[in-house]
Amino acid sequence: MNLVPIRRALLSVSDKAGIQELAEALQVIGCEIISTGGTRKQLENAGIDTTEISTVTGNPEAFGGRMKTISFNIESALLFDRERDATEAAALNIAPIDLVVCNLYPFKKVMEQGSDFETLIENIDIGGPTMVRAAAKNFKYVAVVVDPSDYTELIAELKANNGALSHAFRQRLMAKAFNHTADYDAMIAVTMDKELGKQSLRLSFDQGLGLRYGENSHQKAIFYRETGDKHSLFDMKVLHGKELSFNNILDIHGALEAIKGSKAIACSVVKHNNPCGLAEGDHQRLVLELAWDADPISAFGSIIAFNSTLTLDTVRFFELDNADKTMRKFVEVIIAPKIEADALAYLQLHKNLRVIELDLNHLNYKHDYRYLNGTLLTQDTDDLLYDKLDSTTNIQFDANGEKDLVEFGMRAIRSIKSNSIVIVRRKNGCLQMLGMGAGQPNRLIATKLAIEKSKENLTRELGAQPISAEAFISKALGDAVLISDAFFPFEDNVELAAAEGIRKIVQPGGSIRDKQVTETCNNLGVAMLMTGIRHFKH
Amino acid sequence: MNLVPIRRALLSVSDKAGIQELAEALQVIGCEIISTGGTRKQLENAGIDTTEISTVTGNPEAFGGRMKTISFNIESALLFDRERDATEAAALNIAPIDLVVCNLYPFKKVMEQGSDFETLIENIDIGGPTMVRAAAKNFKYVAVVVDPSDYTELIAELKANNGALSHAFRQRLMAKAFNHTADYDAMIAVTMDKELGKQSLRLSFDQGLGLRYGENSHQKAIFYRETGDKHSLFDMKVLHGKELSFNNILDIHGALEAIKGSKAIACSVVKHNNPCGLAEGDHQRLVLELAWDADPISAFGSIIAFNSTLTLDTVRFFELDNADKTMRKFVEVIIAPKIEADALAYLQLHKNLRVIELDLNHLNYKHDYRYLNGTLLTQDTDDLLYDKLDSTTNIQFDANGEKDLVEFGMRAIRSIKSNSIVIVRRKNGCLQMLGMGAGQPNRLIATKLAIEKSKENLTRELGAQPISAEAFISKALGDAVLISDAFFPFEDNVELAAAEGIRKIVQPGGSIRDKQVTETCNNLGVAMLMTGIRHFKH
Repeated sequence: MNLVPIRRALLSVSDKAGIQELAEALQVIGCEIISTGGTRKQLENAGIDTTEISTVTGNPEAFGGRMKTISFNIESALLFDRERDATEAAALNIAPIDLVVCNLYPFKKVMEQGSDFETLIENIDIGGPTMVRAAAKNFKYVAVVVDPSDYTELIAELKANNGALSHAFRQRLMAKAFNHTADYDAMIAVTMDKELGKQSLRLSFDQGLGLRYGENSHQKAIFYRETGDKHSLFDMKVLHGKELSFNNILDIHGALEAIKGSKAIACSVVKHNNPCGLAEGDHQRLVLELAWDADPISAFGSIIAFNSTLTLDTVRFFELDNADKTMRKFVEVIIAPKIEADALAYLQLHKNLRVIELDLNHLNYKHDYRYLNGTLLTQDTDDLLYDKLDSTTNIQFDANGEKDLVEFGMRAIRSIKSNSIVIVRRKNGCLQMLGMGAGQPNRLIATKLAIEKSKENLTRELGAQPISAEAFISKALGDAVLISDAFFPFEDNVELAAAEGIRKIVQPGGSIRDKQVTETCNNLGVAMLMTGIRHFKH
Repeated sequence: MNLVPIRRALLSVSDKAGIQELAEALQVIGCEIISTGGTRKQLENAGIDTTEISTVTGNPEAFGGRMKTISFNIESALLFDRERDATEAAALNIAPIDLVVCNLYPFKKVMEQGSDFETLIENIDIGGPTMVRAAAKNFKYVAVVVDPSDYTELIAELKANNGALSHAFRQRLMAKAFNHTADYDAMIAVTMDKELGKQSLRLSFDQGLGLRYGENSHQKAIFYRETGDKHSLFDMKVLHGKELSFNNILDIHGALEAIKGSKAIACSVVKHNNPCGLAEGDHQRLVLELAWDADPISAFGSIIAFNSTLTLDTVRFFELDNADKTMRKFVEVIIAPKIEADALAYLQLHKNLRVIELDLNHLNYKHDYRYLNGTLLTQDTDDLLYDKLDSTTNIQFDANGEKDLVEFGMRAIRSIKSNSIVIVRRKNGCLQMLGMGAGQPNRLIATKLAIEKSKENLTRELGAQPISAEAFISKALGDAVLISDAFFPFEDNVELAAAEGIRKIVQPGGSIRDKQVTETCNNLGVAMLMTGIRHFKH
């Protein structure tokens, strides 16, 4: 274990949380405590004996506190090799310091308070990082603690090892220390660049999990968490099933984004990173059925996300216990904020199915990054649904009456790859995506795809009912709303949609041919709403 | 300008490049040079007077060089406020140091050499970062240089200002210094995490350019370069046209990726991040025409990329000088490694058209990152085309004879969003993507889209020729090759393709129904090649 007895410690912290308890624990093991300024004051007030740092440095505290710890004596005490340099240290009268507890001047806090430049500069810690880095370098003999949340483990280790710390613990503390100083200087560097009118960005990720492979088996892949305390997609709790794959994670993200912001009970069915099914309402099982029915072929092998606690009644839809195996509906991943125990037990009938819990509120990140061959595009996430709801046609689009359906459709369209068209409708008191066209270079093809899928779904829905299929479909499409992620450059999309029975269209507007498109709507008896907000997604 | 005369400098560098010239320049202005170890030796050998650092620190060099510069005297000389602390400094006998020239122990080099852990630890610089950070904090009075490439400007500034340095220069050097120490500790932190079996990742980006907006106008966006010396997509040289947009940059990347690896003259036409046109051959104009013809409707407003010097003959295709404006072919971006002067002049006829030069070799990055709500997926780029070329059908797929076409099609398929199907063929001695289906949840729809687009293109190609359209299309599809980015889960895709006349299919294989799919090919007279490599892209 290579234990290092902690006989002499240096405590100098700007965040004083827990420092007294730590000092008391050090006192118990007979450790000398060297301390500075405010830290020392607090400890002395608590009746803990400390050594004033200047008696060790041999120098006064100087220059408004800019010089406190930096000295030949302190850094030597941290840095010298306890074996190789022992004689030299003795000759130079340097006694080892075995533990440094230090957190740095609160540059971040001061920055977030919007302090002026002088104050920022004054809050760049010089002595702290020097001690921390020196102690970390010499972790073979020295322990360094930069985070109050490590005190508990530190105290426990000291107790367990009769006042000494293990090599493993010291090494972990060392790595953490260099991460801390790296974060600290990253923050300062970005701030100083900004002060010069330069935009720089430093991102840090940790807890990397090796995945089996990337999008394809010849690509190696890792899944990281962004460094920090915030909740994120990384908090997924896998309750059951096979290891998550790269594509699973991509699709889980897509599935959750598609239901984010919905206030009803919502469900999305994702395949290849596009929702092919989406529905919301007040009955979970019904909502799942409607989402599934938007593309029941693609839904096999899909990723399905919910925004409400998943119940047994809902998951029975998958018929995992059906004796007739062909009736079982196999999907790759099911994710919900919470999964009831009996629902989980039922899902566990399928050995490989990944069952995951995640609170959707863990996904409120406001930045989107795209890495492209040594460059990065950053943007705000697409958090706005519409800017206005202007009916521009002779036949008024009932923006108030259809608001829930329009908003549902806008959430759908912004989660589908461009060019995209969705057709949404009401069914059984719920809202359903009836068909969608995704990822097309030509918007007209997206419209065709959305209409074809809708007609296919309606034909199946009609079944053997003694109604004219044409009339049934035309009626259903007439009640539905077609939504486009971007403006129509020409009239052709409207003409195509109207010919199939569509009577309500939503689009952002902004084309130089908006007027002609509106005119075409008027001629064809279509009501059109302009939202002012495009939803390209690539 | 707030000039600081440089009267006393500290030089301590591990990279000795240019240090002698710098010292000579300092000598000329009568600046005292304090120096250490190897740096001092080199300067003394060159006949430059230096002050040994220990005479300033008042301490010996100790502990195998671990203690050289760190001292009350050096850091005080760097840190004290020349106004507020002047009296105190005088009383403490601290004379100011006005310039620090320091680069750190070569941790990175030592790491890349695969040195052992002890050596790595020994190469963590403690004194260097302390000096650099102290000088940087006090940049109001002190200059700090961490990069030999700044010596030239430093010397020029000293000359221009009679041995002094300006505030602006010192501030730039300060920001650079903190970036340097941030990079240094980032590298150490990641290495130390790795040593503990933890995977962490730190990314750094600079030169951020604010874009007008992101994918949509309500999203703010910035375009950054990854920090470092490597060439990248950031090197795009915009010769003409409107400011690049977020979507332009995304599509430029997509367009370049689609032609990367081609050894012939290649051209891609991209819309919404998918190539809707792609061709290669030995004649640039012909190749552009073939790429355009794969989807001449979507090609309007597209991003077009070339891998060869763009000529006037080629760009005349766009007919920008046609008196009949409806004949002019407007696109958003044209990018090529080089653009001939007359070609550029011609393209400039279109005021808004962005004309860009970029060497494709600047795109050899091996990592791909996907940021998802506080997490990051990293993977190797998809650099392998195929693992094998196994004809599995009774009718043999002529893998040798068709190798160029298959490789062309594989490059196409891996640059198109999944599920994807492409149909490629030979025409006029070139290779052309005849049709493609992109981004579908259901592979069968992708196959339908690729076939429909191919038939549409062939019908246009046939024109008024007195040949049966059916026979013409069937013959052309029979000569073409259909490629799937992933295996066929069922026989339906093959059945659909064969019914339309397709006789050659390429797919990775790997389905549990490979045997049935092969059998279906045999029954339908189709030759099939299995490559072993899937090309999902999302």
